[in-house]
Amino acid sequence: MLTKSEHPFDDATRVTAGDSRWQGRTSPDYWAFVGPFGGATAATILRALIEHPQASGDPLSLTVNYCAPIAEGPFDLDVRLVKANRSSQHWCVELSQGGAGVATLATAVFAERRRSWSHQQATFPDAKPFEQIQPYPNVAATWVKQYDFRFIDGDPDFRSGKAYPASAFSKLWIGDRVPRKIDMLSLMAMSDAFFARVFHARGELVPFGTVSLTTYFHADADDLAKEDITRLLAVADAKIFHKSYGDQSGELWSPSGRLLATTTQIAYFKA
Amino acid sequence: MLTKSEHPFDDATRVTAGDSRWQGRTSPDYWAFVGPFGGATAATILRALIEHPQASGDPLSLTVNYCAPIAEGPFDLDVRLVKANRSSQHWCVELSQGGAGVATLATAVFAERRRSWSHQQATFPDAKPFEQIQPYPNVAATWVKQYDFRFIDGDPDFRSGKAYPASAFSKLWIGDRVPRKIDMLSLMAMSDAFFARVFHARGELVPFGTVSLTTYFHADADDLAKEDITRLLAVADAKIFHKSYGDQSGELWSPSGRLLATTTQIAYFKA
Repeated sequence: MLTKSEHPFDDATRVTAGDSRWQGRTSPDYWAFVGPFGGATAATILRALIEHPQASGDPLSLTVNYCAPIAEGPFDLDVRLVKANRSSQHWCVELSQGGAGVATLATAVFAERRRSWSHQQATFPDAKPFEQIQPYPNVAATWVKQYDFRFIDGDPDFRSGKAYPASAFSKLWIGDRVPRKIDMLSLMAMSDAFFARVFHARGELVPFGTVSLTTYFHADADDLAKEDITRLLAVADAKIFHKSYGDQSGELWSPSGRLLATTTQIAYFKA
Repeated sequence: MLTKSEHPFDDATRVTAGDSRWQGRTSPDYWAFVGPFGGATAATILRALIEHPQASGDPLSLTVNYCAPIAEGPFDLDVRLVKANRSSQHWCVELSQGGAGVATLATAVFAERRRSWSHQQATFPDAKPFEQIQPYPNVAATWVKQYDFRFIDGDPDFRSGKAYPASAFSKLWIGDRVPRKIDMLSLMAMSDAFFARVFHARGELVPFGTVSLTTYFHADADDLAKEDITRLLAVADAKIFHKSYGDQSGELWSPSGRLLATTTQIAYFKA
């Protein structure tokens, strides 16, 4: 049985170990329009890998392909270590529910992060302090209520009638609504916590779904533990919307100016 | 038996159909330092999918995880349609050689690209015409000789002794050395044809290997056929190098100013 833990995020991403088949379940706290928040699904997959007895090293990259909607309730995670090398591991995870086939297909790379030359070429974005910005009001989807969004640029304004195309760029602070120390799992989830770029570009809500999401981790668990933070500065943008699909790329920064993760996704839209 | 076709790229990426197991082989024409050029491997995987009798729609995204070196010679491609929906397909491909386990693990999404609202937010980079730029001299790796690189910014200069960190940004024209019309396959290969960002940032060659590569296609086969081009304008940059891994993101543009593909990768380096 799953027992209640301290934080809704840890409940939502809880997994039960199996041999190669693990279990998880969707959480009403992280529900989106037609299924669970994709970031929670991605974090649940990552949790199964991090907690796997064969796991070694830190998450380096995770790609999640959302193949079909996930229904409310339990799901299975078929976890497979495809290849292990001296300093890296390649994983494949399939999420399925009963006989409905694969709903989510993910691949991950774990790696020993050895000391090396280090250079951050990207520039830390200017940002007003978190405390000086009004929180984004709660909206319908429950997952949005789990986060504290403070928009610096690209404040969502999805009332139709605005002139478009508007900029797809957003800059915001993001943290868990119930503060929780940022770890690999919440970093993964937050990499999918941007609102759809097409909503910003169009100034309205349209049917939307992420198809494939890839996040790279530029900090290991030690780096993250040292940061000891509960929020991130995040930027996201899009380059193109064409023939029903659009892209998104994003950066997740620690308040101290360290680039923790970069993320990219391609998503379906109807407009 | 494989027969010789007109273009070395088509030879290098040739596949022989099986049921779920297809075959390919490495090409001496597209050889890198310790294995085949990763872009050729990615394009070979994509070719197996495009030529697959169950394939439907156009490539939308391809993620390739390079798990282990590929030896010279033949390899098997285990091709699996993980999920098919009304308008999209999710594929998984494992490349292996004999009993050596999986060397490359890839996931792909194919989609019907329906007409929609279209908006290109990204700006076409300024560039001197291809003809006004000297070709990049041939270097040791055979794969580099297969391409005609014309650098606008970030001309590779990997003599040690330069001040670093230098900019990791590059802008260049790229085409097949033997001109070949750009299709999905060459677009995929060219998305991995940037020199390592760490070479640029450090101003020297260091041990390097791509670990995971993701490319999104923003044009379908019809769009590409209409472009009728043999070269691309490409930009690539990096955000961070840390604890032995660095990122790269890139854009591939048609000369007419259409964004055809975006790409991102995470790579190992030793420095």
